[in-house]
Amino acid sequence: MGEISDTLRNPLSMFDVKGKTAVVTGASGAFGRGVSIALGALGANVVMASGTREDLDEAVADVKDVGGNAIPVYRRPDTLEDAEAMLKAALDEFGGADLLAIGSGYNKAGFIHELDYETWQAVMDANVRGNWFMAKALGTYWIENEVKGKMVMMSSVRGRHGNISGYTGYCTSKGATDSLTRVLATEWSKYGITVNAIAPTVFRSKLTAWMYDEEDELGQATRARSLSRIPLGRLAEVEDLMGMALYLLSPASDFCTGQVMYVDGGFTAG
Amino acid sequence: MGEISDTLRNPLSMFDVKGKTAVVTGASGAFGRGVSIALGALGANVVMASGTREDLDEAVADVKDVGGNAIPVYRRPDTLEDAEAMLKAALDEFGGADLLAIGSGYNKAGFIHELDYETWQAVMDANVRGNWFMAKALGTYWIENEVKGKMVMMSSVRGRHGNISGYTGYCTSKGATDSLTRVLATEWSKYGITVNAIAPTVFRSKLTAWMYDEEDELGQATRARSLSRIPLGRLAEVEDLMGMALYLLSPASDFCTGQVMYVDGGFTAG
Amino acid sequence: MGEISDTLRNPLSMFDVKGKTAVVTGASGAFGRGVSIALGALGANVVMASGTREDLDEAVADVKDVGGNAIPVYRRPDTLEDAEAMLKAALDEFGGADLLAIGSGYNKAGFIHELDYETWQAVMDANVRGNWFMAKALGTYWIENEVKGKMVMMSSVRGRHGNISGYTGYCTSKGATDSLTRVLATEWSKYGITVNAIAPTVFRSKLTAWMYDEEDELGQATRARSLSRIPLGRLAEVEDLMGMALYLLSPASDFCTGQVMYVDGGFTAG
Amino acid sequence: MGEISDTLRNPLSMFDVKGKTAVVTGASGAFGRGVSIALGALGANVVMASGTREDLDEAVADVKDVGGNAIPVYRRPDTLEDAEAMLKAALDEFGGADLLAIGSGYNKAGFIHELDYETWQAVMDANVRGNWFMAKALGTYWIENEVKGKMVMMSSVRGRHGNISGYTGYCTSKGATDSLTRVLATEWSKYGITVNAIAPTVFRSKLTAWMYDEEDELGQATRARSLSRIPLGRLAEVEDLMGMALYLLSPASDFCTGQVMYVDGGFTAG
Repeated sequence: MGEISDTLRNPLSMFDVKGKTAVVTGASGAFGRGVSIALGALGANVVMASGTREDLDEAVADVKDVGGNAIPVYRRPDTLEDAEAMLKAALDEFGGADLLAIGSGYNKAGFIHELDYETWQAVMDANVRGNWFMAKALGTYWIENEVKGKMVMMSSVRGRHGNISGYTGYCTSKGATDSLTRVLATEWSKYGITVNAIAPTVFRSKLTAWMYDEEDELGQATRARSLSRIPLGRLAEVEDLMGMALYLLSPASDFCTGQVMYVDGGFTAG
Repeated sequence: MGEISDTLRNPLSMFDVKGKTAVVTGASGAFGRGVSIALGALGANVVMASGTREDLDEAVADVKDVGGNAIPVYRRPDTLEDAEAMLKAALDEFGGADLLAIGSGYNKAGFIHELDYETWQAVMDANVRGNWFMAKALGTYWIENEVKGKMVMMSSVRGRHGNISGYTGYCTSKGATDSLTRVLATEWSKYGITVNAIAPTVFRSKLTAWMYDEEDELGQATRARSLSRIPLGRLAEVEDLMGMALYLLSPASDFCTGQVMYVDGGFTAG
Repeated sequence: MGEISDTLRNPLSMFDVKGKTAVVTGASGAFGRGVSIALGALGANVVMASGTREDLDEAVADVKDVGGNAIPVYRRPDTLEDAEAMLKAALDEFGGADLLAIGSGYNKAGFIHELDYETWQAVMDANVRGNWFMAKALGTYWIENEVKGKMVMMSSVRGRHGNISGYTGYCTSKGATDSLTRVLATEWSKYGITVNAIAPTVFRSKLTAWMYDEEDELGQATRARSLSRIPLGRLAEVEDLMGMALYLLSPASDFCTGQVMYVDGGFTAG
Repeated sequence: MGEISDTLRNPLSMFDVKGKTAVVTGASGAFGRGVSIALGALGANVVMASGTREDLDEAVADVKDVGGNAIPVYRRPDTLEDAEAMLKAALDEFGGADLLAIGSGYNKAGFIHELDYETWQAVMDANVRGNWFMAKALGTYWIENEVKGKMVMMSSVRGRHGNISGYTGYCTSKGATDSLTRVLATEWSKYGITVNAIAPTVFRSKLTAWMYDEEDELGQATRARSLSRIPLGRLAEVEDLMGMALYLLSPASDFCTGQVMYVDGGFTAG
């Protein structure tokens, strides 16, 4: 017999996040809430940030319901100060900050020849600048305190594929996110920090619920168009993203960095 | 509070492979052995195939040591019959075959103007044709028996990057593997089968041990050249690949198909 | 004998731009000046925009020296009004605007934990927002006037590869550019407009001249590091980009859209 | 005024192939014939290879009709000897061999669980092994004679996208081609040789003519399905590929190597 490492003997230990502290933005949304609950259930502490107070309070309660430790921060990463406030909440409440998951974001569509500049910039700010602020705040802390942090951003198949028409903001912001993922991964590799992104196609949330509604005619049409590009034949649930999220936020991914991971029902492959 | 799914309440359940039966090729090699042990430790049955009898026997013993069920098949996927024999062993011994992990492969380098055709073809046969035979054997079974199988191939950063010189066989075979991953994913999506690949850079195995040897001068030079492209600053261990392998072989990846997943220390990002 | 099309009989006719009017931003820089001269030499009219008055005047004189028609606009695309002023100059002087080449851009490096937000935003604004303004101004004109315009943006290998450390602005802006290329291509395909990008690695310009200087020690070191990733073994000259630029700005590329074309000495392949 | 290079003064000089000798495989097919005519019209000598004697004779006559020099070789690259015979014809007739364009290839579709091995292997052999033989024959000559050759392979959007179902041969062979492009580019960069690929979607040929036929019901359905992924809204003509082919076979692309160039109506972007 050969030598058998502890990892091979106990593979689920790779996904251990117990005692880690995570900062999650957009924590009142489907992805942010889902990640927060999953991390909380596995024994991580979670700082949950969102600008939507009522929904956030409910999401915090959900994390507590599965036995997790969670606190709310009623902020979106609109400024560096917002990002630093989230970090401070983590340090004050839990004494550290190890993981960062970006669930915040924004979209508003419009053909470029009809779209006003402010709307385009708002999409870019929410989806790129916000990530940069979060990275700067947490990354500075990680570097100064020699923490081997892990950051996960939310990208989309739209970062690689230029449909849908009307998405000069959204697609552009996601392509930016993909590159930000790669450059942060490269810049921070020497510190042992990993940075990756998850790129889904449509998944169920308050914003997309109409696309899942069998009674909604526009929903039906939009769903049909989406499904024409999804080989696996269904739209996603947030649970579909959790395996990858947990992989990227746990030691399982310690040698994986700078990747945009498509969990997209086969969209990019087909 | 919102509704909380069982998956979010118990996230590690996504990685459950207990009772599944896996066929693993190249099971005497570092990756195949590692996957076999990890799956065995988690309660899966493993059919371990390899043409290297002694090493395979040892690897089977390793799986049993962690409490797993494993049987050897002394074959490489050189023909469709070899592949079907592995399937038959799974059906005979464990009554099914749910997962397929390709660990078999071959490489021999040489500048194309100096390389004989037979060597090039041998690399292609081992790394592409063998995968196709395995896919055909298992896929046919999955389709006929309505099994939502999961297949994982071994690719490499060389599928995307054309270095090193002398790799017209290896790089080409890995680019082929990447496309085979995508087309199988597309073709089999309607059956709920997923097909993905893991693409590492150098990881420790019997074949690469010299690159990890501090005393070996050529090893040092080769390691230094490799590290110049790996931001995380070290060569891989097989354990580095296990988190992704487990993700791709478990229900955690049920909405993920057709992807080449780089676990490469940042090689492709940098 | 089969039928032989005029295109096959006279292949260089595919590159005909005579009588077309091009708007070129960053026209005082190496790429913008080069494109302007090449287009001018081939009989196109060129509206040359730049914020660097003296250099722009010189570049305009260069275009005239090869027999081209050119006028300066002393603006950078900092606002939509700037972009519209360039369009207006084209319409007023030449009665149309068919081609758009983006040569404007900016870079300033710094590790994210040391970089101030304003610098990061300035890079994003120059390299992404400016492109969006230009696209909006010209695209609106093209759509309203049924002009099958052609747009070429300047990307970089940095859009795909996250090195060099300190490039959270530049890499991110180029990834954004790549996605903007794809979404504009998709959105405008129904109008017959094509949108593509050229992605070089280092090419000689006033800003990079030090890297070509045999006497400059930092230049030598930086060049050596760059060359370690460029299989063809040299840094680029602006002429290296002109064949692709002419392809993308002429009828030769009428069926090619949404592409990031790497002219990089093999950087992305190696 | 600045210094103005000859290239900028006379940009079409970049596309000069006069006096060069090209070897073209699949020269009786749409792409091979088109490239041969275009090169011939521009003053290159063309060695035209194909296994389809009658069609090849006609194509040779077409090249002569535009004033080009061409000779037939009635071979496909099934063995290294075939490839070497094409090279020998070039040396014997024209005293050199500078350019290599691969137009040969094969496809036969079938779901993998229904497809026999021999068919799959035939697709791989025609589309990958044939390219490797041609590369070995010409490359060896180029290296030994210090010729800065240029090679262009025929890839497809199917190398990157795994549709259509039934394409485990074709897609896999094109992914292999893409990687072969990159590794040859890397391996041969030190000799100044460039290697690239053109990746189209459907273009008109004898094999695809039915898809263009308004009267053919299956053609209509297939065309409609294809067009659903082509933003520019039409299938291609071979002339659509000629601009890129000429770019890649002329000095215009001297700094461009290892690229798969998509001329696909926006397929990969959308």
